[in-house]
Amino acid sequence: MTFQPVLERIAEDIGRMPDRGRPAGYIPALAACDPARFGMAVAEPDGTVYGVGEWRTPFSAQSVTKVFTLALDLAREGDALWEHVGREPSGNPFNSLVQLEYEGGIPRNPFINAGALVVTDRLHTRTGDAAAELLTFLRTESGNPGLAFDLDVAASEDAHGDRNAALAHFMASYGNIASPVPVLLDQYFRQCSVAASCADLALATGFLARHGVRADGSRLLSRSQAKQVNAVMLTCGTYDAAGDFAYRVGLPGKSGVGGGIIAVVPGRCTLCVWGPGLDERGNSVSGVAALDRFTTLTGLSVF
Amino acid sequence: MTFQPVLERIAEDIGRMPDRGRPAGYIPALAACDPARFGMAVAEPDGTVYGVGEWRTPFSAQSVTKVFTLALDLAREGDALWEHVGREPSGNPFNSLVQLEYEGGIPRNPFINAGALVVTDRLHTRTGDAAAELLTFLRTESGNPGLAFDLDVAASEDAHGDRNAALAHFMASYGNIASPVPVLLDQYFRQCSVAASCADLALATGFLARHGVRADGSRLLSRSQAKQVNAVMLTCGTYDAAGDFAYRVGLPGKSGVGGGIIAVVPGRCTLCVWGPGLDERGNSVSGVAALDRFTTLTGLSVF
Amino acid sequence: MTFQPVLERIAEDIGRMPDRGRPAGYIPALAACDPARFGMAVAEPDGTVYGVGEWRTPFSAQSVTKVFTLALDLAREGDALWEHVGREPSGNPFNSLVQLEYEGGIPRNPFINAGALVVTDRLHTRTGDAAAELLTFLRTESGNPGLAFDLDVAASEDAHGDRNAALAHFMASYGNIASPVPVLLDQYFRQCSVAASCADLALATGFLARHGVRADGSRLLSRSQAKQVNAVMLTCGTYDAAGDFAYRVGLPGKSGVGGGIIAVVPGRCTLCVWGPGLDERGNSVSGVAALDRFTTLTGLSVF
Amino acid sequence: MTFQPVLERIAEDIGRMPDRGRPAGYIPALAACDPARFGMAVAEPDGTVYGVGEWRTPFSAQSVTKVFTLALDLAREGDALWEHVGREPSGNPFNSLVQLEYEGGIPRNPFINAGALVVTDRLHTRTGDAAAELLTFLRTESGNPGLAFDLDVAASEDAHGDRNAALAHFMASYGNIASPVPVLLDQYFRQCSVAASCADLALATGFLARHGVRADGSRLLSRSQAKQVNAVMLTCGTYDAAGDFAYRVGLPGKSGVGGGIIAVVPGRCTLCVWGPGLDERGNSVSGVAALDRFTTLTGLSVF
Repeated sequence: MTFQPVLERIAEDIGRMPDRGRPAGYIPALAACDPARFGMAVAEPDGTVYGVGEWRTPFSAQSVTKVFTLALDLAREGDALWEHVGREPSGNPFNSLVQLEYEGGIPRNPFINAGALVVTDRLHTRTGDAAAELLTFLRTESGNPGLAFDLDVAASEDAHGDRNAALAHFMASYGNIASPVPVLLDQYFRQCSVAASCADLALATGFLARHGVRADGSRLLSRSQAKQVNAVMLTCGTYDAAGDFAYRVGLPGKSGVGGGIIAVVPGRCTLCVWGPGLDERGNSVSGVAALDRFTTLTGLSVF
Repeated sequence: MTFQPVLERIAEDIGRMPDRGRPAGYIPALAACDPARFGMAVAEPDGTVYGVGEWRTPFSAQSVTKVFTLALDLAREGDALWEHVGREPSGNPFNSLVQLEYEGGIPRNPFINAGALVVTDRLHTRTGDAAAELLTFLRTESGNPGLAFDLDVAASEDAHGDRNAALAHFMASYGNIASPVPVLLDQYFRQCSVAASCADLALATGFLARHGVRADGSRLLSRSQAKQVNAVMLTCGTYDAAGDFAYRVGLPGKSGVGGGIIAVVPGRCTLCVWGPGLDERGNSVSGVAALDRFTTLTGLSVF
Repeated sequence: MTFQPVLERIAEDIGRMPDRGRPAGYIPALAACDPARFGMAVAEPDGTVYGVGEWRTPFSAQSVTKVFTLALDLAREGDALWEHVGREPSGNPFNSLVQLEYEGGIPRNPFINAGALVVTDRLHTRTGDAAAELLTFLRTESGNPGLAFDLDVAASEDAHGDRNAALAHFMASYGNIASPVPVLLDQYFRQCSVAASCADLALATGFLARHGVRADGSRLLSRSQAKQVNAVMLTCGTYDAAGDFAYRVGLPGKSGVGGGIIAVVPGRCTLCVWGPGLDERGNSVSGVAALDRFTTLTGLSVF
Repeated sequence: MTFQPVLERIAEDIGRMPDRGRPAGYIPALAACDPARFGMAVAEPDGTVYGVGEWRTPFSAQSVTKVFTLALDLAREGDALWEHVGREPSGNPFNSLVQLEYEGGIPRNPFINAGALVVTDRLHTRTGDAAAELLTFLRTESGNPGLAFDLDVAASEDAHGDRNAALAHFMASYGNIASPVPVLLDQYFRQCSVAASCADLALATGFLARHGVRADGSRLLSRSQAKQVNAVMLTCGTYDAAGDFAYRVGLPGKSGVGGGIIAVVPGRCTLCVWGPGLDERGNSVSGVAALDRFTTLTGLSVF
């Protein structure tokens, strides 16, 4: 099956959407993005990629990278990770700190900021350079050696990093962070700053459609672990809208404030969509709409 | 594919489990149940049923019925329901009142008690007797006309009903409950008290494997609605363990404090397992383990 | 010292206030009150009363009565009461239910609604008619046998009583309420509905200026208990504005949504002020301003 | 009136107390303190001091210093301070971060850690060295030029400072902290580390009994401001036990985890008591008992 006609039809539909949200405002590089921009790519397990719109244009991956950091750490330490971070939806719109306090410094899941800081800290402790690990992985899986950090974006994040610093110190007070906080934040902001295209990210997500196997045929995660990462994406991947995303799209997905969303149809394909305008919960308006259309048009859904 | 050998193997494995939790203590009829009891049934879309253990023994369905009430109301009022109840995981182990207060009397999802009270209230307002609607539906789908309420259990619930009364009055203070509270509680407790077997409940869940179609071929829910109910089950169906359940089992499921769990493999089959011993989050210990084994042995999972 | 000139000056100052808030909106009888109305009375320990404005006009005492119910129950059961209700400020603007849940059904203090329901429940259990006890006490201390419940107001409260019903059922679920909830609410709403004037309430509060001694010289509370009630009033008497009230006024006080506030200068006098317009925290705007002026002009303050 | 006989009687009573709590465990210098140690001093407005036990032994003042920092900043910036910190009791045993989040980075009052960090930040911004300001003030008022920081204690605090760092960064994310966080923490921990005796601290608190006037007759605070500081002490001075402290002791007071408590009888005297054993809310067990005895024996209380 070729996905090309479906993608073109989706792009047309998106082109007619009157309101596509607003870009994230807290970083100049993101705030300047035109919400009308749009790209989408589908990658099949064998590496075939289909695309539409600006599917080869790099954008700021932001929290989309949390999936890869999670997989890289899980591949190394296995279930021991789950003693340091949970895998339940966070549920509460107003809260990361509340729940951290209530649960003794253990974040609810690896995709809220607190949880991603813990995963980065653990990968960093194991490898000596978590950001370098991530970059190497993304370059290899996407076949794009030019994929890089955007250090201006990382510096902007750092300048607005008080809230993440608060989270990191707070978890450190419970003994759940090993790295010095400034080192951890530098690692974390660099990871978030990765600039990659829809094609790059759809390809890099491929291991989740291949039940844990990397592009070169080697195994990153066990079949069971790949299934588990998909499950965490479905229940926790889109901030406080995970239930709504599951309801509308019905695929494991992970969004970022740069406007990107990756999604997985296990065994069939991976997707990445980009639209910089966000809804009030921080998910790309055109991105969610495009994925919704995709599952409706193709009938592909996990449900 | 016959599921019989898989079920037998699971029953053997469960038989060797050293600890199967404790039955719910707040109702005498439930507290007296031996946690070693066990039954499991699988129903195929065409109505073929496989079973093992006490798969024909009626037990107290409790919150498992919330799926059917949701479907019955959704079939009637459609998306308007979602203005009165959300579909996000509740996330918070220590309350429902906090979130109700924070969110202005709109429960997070239809499967926490507050949300189920709203759905029952709406179905009751529309039909004049929500409990009767539910019973008729369950009898028809299971083909078991003897299926009935256990009025002793309902009376016991009522005697310990202060917390549900608090929830109902609290939502009424926000205008989100239309029935008089005592009427609503009577309806609610009767629904929870339904006594049904694994075979009954696996068959009654069949419409979710058949993409919305009832046993007689008529349509209850649209394809899209059936997918949506599955999504809500996956993200919200097992109290504060939805993430863990998705991670371990990877199927839409709904548990009850009577020790039952129903689950769906869309397009393939529906399951019901019963083991009265619960874990600290209120889910059947042997039930979760049995479903975990099922997905491992068959490779069936949505991920 | 005669307080008359001070009262007249205060009334003049209040007369020039441009904004005196808005009356409570949820009960028709309260909502209809003109925020420009104003009365104030000071009672000396010997029973001498000074007044200004509408100091002899009955108004709806509402939560002001919580002080008397507390004293009447404390006189009967002593420190055992504090096992059922705390005496710490509630602190949280959005919460009664949150804290109740966190603290296992024990309200933070006797002046939030949940705590007052507990105190009423205990007094009612001991006397068989808490509301009658209260009325007799108020009539005797004020010397006004015509003082009465306003049953229209009580009925209005009852019609909007879902939130209090929720609180009562919630505490009952923790075993902290002994009466049937409807009986308790009837008692509670009748107490709140007492119609009394500034003169009546200033006189009825006299026992707190007389270190526990009633108007006829008999002892209601021990010296130590009277001091304790004053302490609870200072730290918890004005909803979420207790700190601000202590800061501005510096006297033990208790406000009600009818616009009344009582206050105590231990050993010297008691005050009652009435102005139906409330601020956003539920305290009388002109009432707080008048007490603020009183302590500034007289130098009387506990600090 | 000489306070000497009263103090001796209190010391005797305290000597018979079977359980005097446990010293704070998180700093070695504090953890090593014997809970049986005890000292108490009373200072009259004219500078006369009475004492008993180890009333001349320096101990770690810790949060007791928050009163002086508050007064020093209030003297400089007046009511503008209250736009950056509230004056309501914190009410919640289980957090400060929750309320900070709920209230947009404005701490509830100047005596919880978050609030004290804000006050220190503001004093530091105004003076260039908040800790030096504090030290000069304490030396002058106590007449003890040897009074000093304990830099070992400050270093210990810093080593366990993640939670305070989290608070500071969190408030900085709301724009409510002006200093760089490491500078602020250094200032804060030095202030907390002040070693002073009961005599020193009772004398240094004298301005609150003298309605704002310093030992040399110059004015630090207006009469109204002195009253206001007393009010904040009464409602917020003893962590989550402010209501209980007001109930039992009935005086404005401020405690520290070093086991010290200062208290004020406006117009009459100031007190400082020291006993290193704490109760579960962080207040000195023998200290609260001694102040309770003092008010009972002398009849001095604000109520």
